[in-house]
Order: sequence, then C-alpha cells, then structure tokens
Amino acid sequence: MTTLADAQAQDAADPLAPMRAHFALPDGVIYLDGNSLGALPKATVTAQEDAVARQWGADLIRSWNSNDWIGAPQRIGAKIAPLIGAKPHEVIVTDSVSVNLFKLIVAATRLRPGRSHILTEPGNFPTDLYTAKGASGILPDHIVHTEQAGDLADALGPETALMMLTHVHYKSGERHDMAGLTEAAHNAGALTLWDLSHSVGAIPVDLNGCDVDLAVGCGYKYLNGGPGAPAFLYVREDLQEEIHSPLSGWMGHAAPFEFRDDYEPAPGITRFLCGTPPILSLLALETGVELFADIEMKAVAAKSAALFDLFVAHVEERCGDYGLNLITPRDAAHRGSHISFAHSDGWPISQALIERGVIGDFRAPDILRFGLTPLYLRFEDVWRAVEILGDILDSGIWREERFAEKAAVT
Amino acid sequence: MTTLADAQAQDAADPLAPMRAHFALPDGVIYLDGNSLGALPKATVTAQEDAVARQWGADLIRSWNSNDWIGAPQRIGAKIAPLIGAKPHEVIVTDSVSVNLFKLIVAATRLRPGRSHILTEPGNFPTDLYTAKGASGILPDHIVHTEQAGDLADALGPETALMMLTHVHYKSGERHDMAGLTEAAHNAGALTLWDLSHSVGAIPVDLNGCDVDLAVGCGYKYLNGGPGAPAFLYVREDLQEEIHSPLSGWMGHAAPFEFRDDYEPAPGITRFLCGTPPILSLLALETGVELFADIEMKAVAAKSAALFDLFVAHVEERCGDYGLNLITPRDAAHRGSHISFAHSDGWPISQALIERGVIGDFRAPDILRFGLTPLYLRFEDVWRAVEILGDILDSGIWREERFAEKAAVT
Repeated sequence: MTTLADAQAQDAADPLAPMRAHFALPDGVIYLDGNSLGALPKATVTAQEDAVARQWGADLIRSWNSNDWIGAPQRIGAKIAPLIGAKPHEVIVTDSVSVNLFKLIVAATRLRPGRSHILTEPGNFPTDLYTAKGASGILPDHIVHTEQAGDLADALGPETALMMLTHVHYKSGERHDMAGLTEAAHNAGALTLWDLSHSVGAIPVDLNGCDVDLAVGCGYKYLNGGPGAPAFLYVREDLQEEIHSPLSGWMGHAAPFEFRDDYEPAPGITRFLCGTPPILSLLALETGVELFADIEMKAVAAKSAALFDLFVAHVEERCGDYGLNLITPRDAAHRGSHISFAHSDGWPISQALIERGVIGDFRAPDILRFGLTPLYLRFEDVWRAVEILGDILDSGIWREERFAEKAAVT
Repeated sequence: MTTLADAQAQDAADPLAPMRAHFALPDGVIYLDGNSLGALPKATVTAQEDAVARQWGADLIRSWNSNDWIGAPQRIGAKIAPLIGAKPHEVIVTDSVSVNLFKLIVAATRLRPGRSHILTEPGNFPTDLYTAKGASGILPDHIVHTEQAGDLADALGPETALMMLTHVHYKSGERHDMAGLTEAAHNAGALTLWDLSHSVGAIPVDLNGCDVDLAVGCGYKYLNGGPGAPAFLYVREDLQEEIHSPLSGWMGHAAPFEFRDDYEPAPGITRFLCGTPPILSLLALETGVELFADIEMKAVAAKSAALFDLFVAHVEERCGDYGLNLITPRDAAHRGSHISFAHSDGWPISQALIERGVIGDFRAPDILRFGLTPLYLRFEDVWRAVEILGDILDSGIWREERFAEKAAVT
C-alpha cells in the first residue's frame, strides 16, 4: 500500500515543487479541476489591479499605445508559441476556441476547393462538432464526416478538405498521434486543424515538428488564464498569406486606424483578429502564461505522468472494489494530463468529493474526471484525494439524497 | 463670452452631477474620450478584486454555479435592456460587436431567402462594412449594397434582405431616424440591424418602440465596461425561435452540459452565445452597466445636449478664427453624444491637447472628436477644454514637430 510518506518523498524530489508557491490555492481544497479552470496565479492579483486602476483608470485611452494593449494579442501569442512548438509569429490570442474554430474551418475549406468533407470523430468536444456543423451549414455542399478514432486515417480521401481533431480527448484523456495523423491527412491532400485545449501547458506539443497547418487552444485550463480567458489560434507560417478569416473585423485589417471602407487583411497572423479584444481577460491570461517562461514542458509532462501513476496505483489499492473503471490510457505517450473513471454514480460521488474539499468534475453520462496540473498539484494531494475517495466509497455517503441534485454547470 | 462662472452655475443645477463621484478620474485630465473608452467606475476596482481573488481564486470552478458565472451573459443583457427599449430576455452580452454583427448578418439573410442585398452606407464604422463583406463573401450571391444616408430609404427594394446601419455615426455624430428607416425597411420586406455602439448609455434608444429586428452594441464606450468589454446583441422576441446563429458554439446549446454530439439551439436569445465567455471582462461590464440603474436616459440625453451646446457656443466664441468646421448636427434629435470638428491639422492639434490634459481623439483623415459623457463630465470641464483648445490655436504650438508623429492607435 502506497503511504503518505511515499507521496511526500516524491514531493521532496520534485523539481517543479517550488511552482506551487506562485498560486493562490484555498485552504481545505485539493483542486483536481485545473483542466477545466486553472488556479489563480498570485501575480495575477496585482497584475489585474494594475490593469484596472492604472492602465484603465489613470492612463485611460492612452493605454492602447502606452501600455501596448494593441500589441497584446500578438505578444501573448508569442509567449504561448514555445509551449506548442510554434514560431512566435504563428500564434495569436483572440476570441474563444469556438469562434476561432469557425474562422479556421471556413478558411481551410476555401484553400481546398472541390473538397467537401470536414473529417472529425464522434464524441469530440461538443463545441468542435457544433461549430463544424454550423460552418458546414453555410458552406456550399459541405458535410461533417465523423469516424471513430481508429478509423480516421482510412477515412481520409479526395473528398477531405480538413481533418479537425482534438489532440487530447476531453473525456477519456486519450491522445491522438498528431504526427502520424497529420502526415496521413497531408498525403490525402487535406489540411489539419488541431484543438489543443486539453494539451497546452500540460504535455509537450510540437506543431512545427508535426507540420500542423492550423490549431486552436484554450487559455483558461492549464494556462491558468482565468475564467473564460481568450483562446489562441495558430496558422503555420507558409499558409498565412493565402488564408483568410471569414470574420473580417477591423482589428484584423492591415490599417485599422485609417478607417477605410475596403477590407485589406493584415499581414500574417494578425488577420485572424476580429473585434476589439477584452483587455482585462487578455492581461490575466498573460500572467498565467508567463509562469511557464522558465520551465521545460518535458519536466511538466514527466510530473504529469508520475501524478497519474500514483493516482492509478492508489485507486487500485484503496478503491479497487467499487467499480471505478479507468477509461484513460495508462501509457503516458497516449494520454493528456487528466484521469477519468466511469462509474454509474459518477455524479453523486463527484458531489460528495466536493463536500470533502476534493474538486474534480463530472462529465455526462458517467465520468469522474480529475485534472493533474503539474505546476501546483503535489503528490501528497493526489494521495489524500484518493484516500478521501476511498472513505466516500467505503461509507456510501454519496447515496444521500442531497448529492443527487444536478447543477446548472457540471 | 461664456464665463467659467456660467459653466459652474450649470454644474450646480445639474441633477446628474453626483454621478461623477462614482468614477476614478485622474487629476489633471479632462477626459473627452469616453465615447471610445469609458472611464473607470470606482466600484469596478473592488468588484474586480472580488472576481479575481474570491470568485476565481477561492471558489474556483464552483463559481460557475455559486457566483452564477453561467448566467452572466443573460443577467447583464437584462440590465442593458432598459437602456435601449428592449425586454430583458431580448438582450445578451457576448463576444465583440464584430463577431455579433457576423452572427446576425448571416442569420438575417437566412430569414430572407431569395434576397441578396445587405444595405448599408459608405463610411459606416469600418468593422460593420468589413464584417458585412466577409459575411456576404461566404453567402451565395450576396452583396453589400451601399448608399449615402439620404438615399437609403429609396434604395430599399425586393432585393434587400437586411438594412444594417449604425445609429449614431462614429465620426460625424449624425443620428439616423431609427423609426422611419426601420418602417421603410419593413415596408420593403427587409429586416433591420442597428449598431448602437455610439448610442447606448448616451442617448435614449427605443428598439421595441421602433420595431427593430436585430441590434448590437458596444460595452466599452458609454457603458464604462472596461477596455474591449464584451458586446451585446439584441433579437426581437418574436424572431428568436426562427433565427439561428452560424456560430453554433456550445454555450448556445440547449443543454451544453449533456455534451451531446448533435447541436440543438438553446431557446431564446441564449442561442447567440458561442464559446465560453471572458468572465473577468464580463463582470467589469456589469459594474459599469449597474451605474445606470437609477438614472433616467432622458436626463442623460438632456445633459448631453446641454454639454454640446456649451461646447459649440464656447468654440465659436473662443476659437472662431481657426478653421474648425463643426460636422456634427446642431439639433440634438439628430445626433449622438460626441462633437466633431474637421480641421486639416486635426492630428497634431489632438496631440497638443493631450499634452495639456485634454483627451479627445482623432479620426482619419481630419476629424477632432470629443465625447460628451453625461455621467462624469462637468460643464466646467467642457468650458476649460475649449479654453485650452483656444490657447493651443492661439499659440500655434501644435505646429511643433513632436506633435506630428503618428501613434499605432489613434
């Protein structure tokens, strides 16, 4: 049986352990939902005070120049780029994942005239599917073609304009072979669009190394950018001058402050901006991203794998009899940084855990999901969380009626 | 000649004068750019601290329920509704003006099959024109049809799917006849989409009274929602069940947390949500909007008109010889809440004003624009600003080379 002392020994040897001090974590909580909303960096508190009181309140409109608000989307994009194997000018922060997916789906299909399929998998994160269907609905004769993960490579063909996949599955944690599938898509003449929402900041991603065409990702999960933080968007360098956003708002114009009637897209990645960006949320994201400046993604991935291994081992030791069905691949190379168990009473168990201060989440219909965030999670936390899970399962307390009530957001 | 004492007497009689104390205005500045970025409400400082430290930092993911983040877009929309003559469930806060224009342009054209024209005016705010062109570019055979303001009613016809106009012109301040043009559009069988960015929070707007179909507006100008604050979107009640957003992201789904593969639009205005909203920016907007809770838009409009009259009168008295050409209509019923003068040296004059603490802005090619924000601007401020403008014109200081250099954002 793994002991608390074993877990504490892992913490003592953890090169990322000092990162935890950069986060404002509440007492009495073991936070296993950083894959849904990352924790608050302490530096964000003072950075937001500065953004509100000095940049907005005192400097007012002048901040677009004096505090370089106008450059924030590109500046923050460049800080995200090394986390995903991209060049600084290939990434921009703007809008939401959903809006960016729409831009890139429509833009990609225009680069592949005569091809009408957008290939993805069933059970992909819903907004990816919904957005692809919405986009295909306004494109001439386009359809969303879904195939199970194992059949995607074979499903590529002369009809495929775009293969759009989420790198790490939001529910199972399963990771696609980005290099292999991208190569297969290119061999079929299709473009690729990868959603990195459950990858970025948790596992290494090498967009350039995999020759990926297009990508999007989330700012509010492992990047710790704050609730609903703006998303990022990547376009490979050599595609940037031929690709056009259908959302041709003024911030993507070559000269927005000339106020011309005719649209001329900005050079490079900037053309994927649309309206005026939400600066307060953007600056909160910047502080979150900056915490990655001095750490290696390899070290993050190694700790993620070790946290996972401890979680699985201790669940098997402590909760083996209660029907928790691990649905996440055990091999670190084939998963992201969360761990999911199917259980028919996943919802009330997740609620009983929260009452005891263990915050994971539930994904319909039956998934208990726990995010493993290497920057601020201790091995001790994982060990204690599994102990509490064991207590709850032993006691059957989750069967009490108060845990049955559904919330608006799960 | 109007005296400082005259202006101060107007302040003493101003029923909105107490509102100024709610704003954090820097010393030494007369802020005449609230039509571009509204000033910081003092309450926003503490509200953002709470949003960051307590709601995000301590409550973490639970805040989607416990602090009703999930309901924020509808809740803030309902608070904006009375400012624009709409019902609470007709307005939602989401995305940017540009993104919302795209949603509504595409959605509207689908309600008018067989009609291919999007009618607007040349010189409309660029993002409106750019977005309409971007949208028409992916719709089958649609075009953007522009006509000068005076010719719009005559240009409506059986080809017109949508008439899209900005209520108050960003440059001239000229106000369209919303009731008359909407009626003309309806008589031609077209829908109407009004951009209220330069109206909301400054002048009364009566969408329901004018039978307007669709509208959007800006959160960061007169609503004082902070830099790049999310925008709002209005759909008239009886259109809500037949209209569909092309940006079908998960937050607009009928049951986003059931994570189904198939898209089913939410009932009502919620279907116009797309991705996860930027909560910090959203909550900053809420505080700004709440400052309007106890004041009448009629009082705001009356003060706007009086500020304008003082501005014009004192410019004519003090700066009459320097070629400032008023391009904003003098009749309060035909304009918004900013005042614009054309001058061939508008740029260096605007920079010389800023050096003296009078912050207005410049709009290419030659417009000096000053926003009149009734909530925090005093008559004394207007009087003093015109005095400083007069000093600058008298002295010719704006001809010095340092005022010529252009900024990234003007």
